[in-house]
Amino acid sequence: MDALLTRLRAAVGPDAVLTDPDVTSAYRRDMMPLAPHGRPLAVVLPSDAGQVQEVVRACAAHRTPIVPRGAGSGLSGAANAVEGCVVLVTTRMNRIVEIDPDNRLAVVEPGVVNLDLRGAVEKHGLFYPPDPSSYDWCTIGGNLSTNAGGLCCVKYGVTTDSVLGLEVVLADGELLKTGRRTVKGVAGYDLTKLFVGSEGTLGVITRATLALRPLPQAPATLVATFSRTADAGVAVARVVREGVVPSLMEIMDRTSIRAVEQYLKTDLNADEALLICQSDAGGEAARRDLAVIEQVCRDSGADLTYTTDDLSEGRDLLAARRAVLNALEVYGAWLTDDVCVPRTRIADLIAGCERIGADLGLRIAVVGHAGDGNMHPTIVYDPTSEDEFARARRAFDEILAVGLALGGTVTGEHGIGKIKREWLAKEIGPVGLRVHREIKRALDPENLFNPGSMFS
Amino acid sequence: MDALLTRLRAAVGPDAVLTDPDVTSAYRRDMMPLAPHGRPLAVVLPSDAGQVQEVVRACAAHRTPIVPRGAGSGLSGAANAVEGCVVLVTTRMNRIVEIDPDNRLAVVEPGVVNLDLRGAVEKHGLFYPPDPSSYDWCTIGGNLSTNAGGLCCVKYGVTTDSVLGLEVVLADGELLKTGRRTVKGVAGYDLTKLFVGSEGTLGVITRATLALRPLPQAPATLVATFSRTADAGVAVARVVREGVVPSLMEIMDRTSIRAVEQYLKTDLNADEALLICQSDAGGEAARRDLAVIEQVCRDSGADLTYTTDDLSEGRDLLAARRAVLNALEVYGAWLTDDVCVPRTRIADLIAGCERIGADLGLRIAVVGHAGDGNMHPTIVYDPTSEDEFARARRAFDEILAVGLALGGTVTGEHGIGKIKREWLAKEIGPVGLRVHREIKRALDPENLFNPGSMFS
Ligand SMILES: Cc1cc2nc3c(=O)[nH]c(=O)nc-3n(C[C@H](O)[C@H](O)[C@H](O)COP(=O)(O)OP(=O)(O)OC[C@H]3O[C@@H](n4cnc5c(N)ncnc54)[C@H](O)[C@@H]3O)c2cc1C
Ligand SMILES: Cc1cc2nc3c(=O)[nH]c(=O)nc-3n(C[C@H](O)[C@H](O)[C@H](O)COP(=O)(O)OP(=O)(O)OC[C@H]3O[C@@H](n4cnc5c(N)ncnc54)[C@H](O)[C@@H]3O)c2cc1C
Repeated sequence: MDALLTRLRAAVGPDAVLTDPDVTSAYRRDMMPLAPHGRPLAVVLPSDAGQVQEVVRACAAHRTPIVPRGAGSGLSGAANAVEGCVVLVTTRMNRIVEIDPDNRLAVVEPGVVNLDLRGAVEKHGLFYPPDPSSYDWCTIGGNLSTNAGGLCCVKYGVTTDSVLGLEVVLADGELLKTGRRTVKGVAGYDLTKLFVGSEGTLGVITRATLALRPLPQAPATLVATFSRTADAGVAVARVVREGVVPSLMEIMDRTSIRAVEQYLKTDLNADEALLICQSDAGGEAARRDLAVIEQVCRDSGADLTYTTDDLSEGRDLLAARRAVLNALEVYGAWLTDDVCVPRTRIADLIAGCERIGADLGLRIAVVGHAGDGNMHPTIVYDPTSEDEFARARRAFDEILAVGLALGGTVTGEHGIGKIKREWLAKEIGPVGLRVHREIKRALDPENLFNPGSMFS
Repeated sequence: MDALLTRLRAAVGPDAVLTDPDVTSAYRRDMMPLAPHGRPLAVVLPSDAGQVQEVVRACAAHRTPIVPRGAGSGLSGAANAVEGCVVLVTTRMNRIVEIDPDNRLAVVEPGVVNLDLRGAVEKHGLFYPPDPSSYDWCTIGGNLSTNAGGLCCVKYGVTTDSVLGLEVVLADGELLKTGRRTVKGVAGYDLTKLFVGSEGTLGVITRATLALRPLPQAPATLVATFSRTADAGVAVARVVREGVVPSLMEIMDRTSIRAVEQYLKTDLNADEALLICQSDAGGEAARRDLAVIEQVCRDSGADLTYTTDDLSEGRDLLAARRAVLNALEVYGAWLTDDVCVPRTRIADLIAGCERIGADLGLRIAVVGHAGDGNMHPTIVYDPTSEDEFARARRAFDEILAVGLALGGTVTGEHGIGKIKREWLAKEIGPVGLRVHREIKRALDPENLFNPGSMFS
């Protein structure tokens, strides 16, 4: 392997090839504790697409797998190293190449941090919608490769809805350009959206052209509390039915409410479920949106509703939702699951999680993007107890089974990675799996990129 | 081939296999006069997915190509028969299987006519956005396979933005299910969006799960007239920049204005260019949107602006735009091109078309979806004159060259089909073409579906 390391050093410079296990161990896994991970041969940090091409060609020649990696904030083990691989980290490719306000687009390198892009385009009165909760450190390349969501998807869609084109280094080192700079275009297969969400298994994204939107108005906020989870579920479905499109609609279950109350030393006045909604439609329109949502919540049995168009008060109310993971850490380590169910089945999913938690003797808090039906049941466990870890793993799987049974999917936004492979197979079936393998083989015949991730 | 016909008749019933050339000739081509087309061996009209599977297996066994076809309203020759093929027509598969208002989705068969779906969901207060101008006869299957656009894309996106999942019969007759019923989901590659826009080259879509939206408010309408095309172009870019998102923004150039004035015997009071915009944001919000657009138009040099929130008056104003093709027929046959350029380059594209028309001695009217930069320069020619037809063909190509040179794409919504294959190759380059071939080979190794369409 010395020959490979020599070639890699020549390609990206010696300081951009890390081999010291003390250093490379930081690149072995992402934020999902359950997923397998191996020891990389090396971690390389290329600075541009040309270097990525060199790295890919070198690894291909030595039949050494490549695991692309952004910030490593993933929750599926997708960026986890496989034994003896090269981890290709994009964080040095972090230039915002262009912002074009007249055509409302930006061109960026993959290592740009989501928040940095948001900030840069905001100066032009523009908005890059995808806002995973990890936005202050995750990268656009990671967002693209997982098709990341976030809080505002309910109105603005997920990452794939904001991508116009990509540049991707393929398994033979060639640079593929997909898509375009125009808003519309149907020339050929939609390769752009094929690479989005492909979790680093088909190539290395080295550049992206992203569609931007006008910066929305400051949001008005509503909270509603329920003493029955089912009522909150009904409220969500009715909001959908009423035709209101909030810019955010989050739900917290009893366990997350209690944890946050403890943690923030506050009383959320919510018994079983809390809904937080925002509308960024501005002025009168936002007031109308929230008035409809308020009425729906009341009709559905809310105990209490509260609306404000004060921005900082809105932020405080949302802080409860944002605090959930930190609040749970008081009780142990957390393990976040990710299922998406039809919006009418949210209450059923929460009930399912309660049952699983009771059966397995685990604290499971459910929070989620209610407006999309995308729920994150979060399992708390003691990492020092093997038995509890095993039960957490079981709970993780049982939640997926409930999600599937409710007509949902085993991942709404975190991806399959190295943790849900059997579940992908279950969800898409043998024909689906076969087509996945055919496409993978067509684009990456030697299985160079992220082998064993997503499916094998 | 008798064996194949016998097997097809057994599969779909004798009345659903047409072989009389007088009858099948109606299925030889779509609405694009330039594209090559052959004589089908047979036209089959299956009634359900099971029958489609049988037809595909039969054709595969006899190595007879299949050309899937909806209504045949396409403008790229994509549905044109190749010599000796089986044209698989979906018009008998026209059931709306389900409308689920709580989850805002519909499940349909591919032969459902766009307008029928619009009408059916409207009864539930819901809206299926993609609205190609051919919506009263084109099918959802055709819309999916071309990733059809329309007038309201500027606000609501194109077909791919409204699809949650598909069922597709593959080349070996297996039924693939892609996607899901939930709003979000990232389990595996986005096969759904790979099939959308694939122009019948990868399989036969037999069912689709479509995302619906709340029915928007009745639109308010604004028209603005310009004595310089460049000013209208500037106005479009500024509207984008101002952050207003109209629900429709169409442009007509001088030639289309004159043709419509003649045809409708009316005075549009527009010299060089006419913009028609709508906002369906409702009430105050719509008035605000249009006020901003009006101001922008004035600042950009509009001669005249007129705004109305009267629905039928708005419809009348839009009627001018909708009349263009009919108006042009007075002068000869029309041939519509389809390019999409960055929104800042619309005026340049119109100027380019004027130059091409003058050079070649042809009337070229430019209309288009200005809000997306998606322009339809429409060439008028005398179909009985070989020379004029040849010049029309040249103009068609020269327009594409101008579009590409302006940073655009050779098709915004009509597709590549059998008429723009060289242009696809030019636009995506050798690496892009190679990847297209690899994907095609992976999914359809015997080149069963629509051979020679899109690329070869
Ligand atoms: C606290 C917390 C909150 C989170 N909240 C959300 C949320 O709300 N919504 C959400 O969707 N996710 C969320 N996540 C998950 C995670 O942040 C996202 O998946 C994010 O998109 C990953 O970005 P990253 O840069 O960290 O990618 P990584 O984790 O480094 O990699 C993710 C995947 O992308 C691939 N990849 C990365 N860069 C490239 C490239 N240039 N080319 C090809 N492949 C590449 C990797 O191989 C891997 O498969 C959260 C995570 C945490 C820890
Ligand atoms: C007057 C006029 C105006 C138009 N305006 C617009 C417009 O505004 N926007 C726009 O986008 N288009 C427009 N079009 C073009 C055309 O109507 C669209 O491309 C439409 O989507 C085609 O639908 P169809 O049912 O007629 O499909 P067809 O023309 O029959 O087929 C189109 C393609 O889809 C494939 N196909 C059809 N059904 C299936 C299936 N079930 N499975 C797999 N492949 C299938 C065919 O093989 C072919 O490649 C217009 C056409 C006309 C004549």
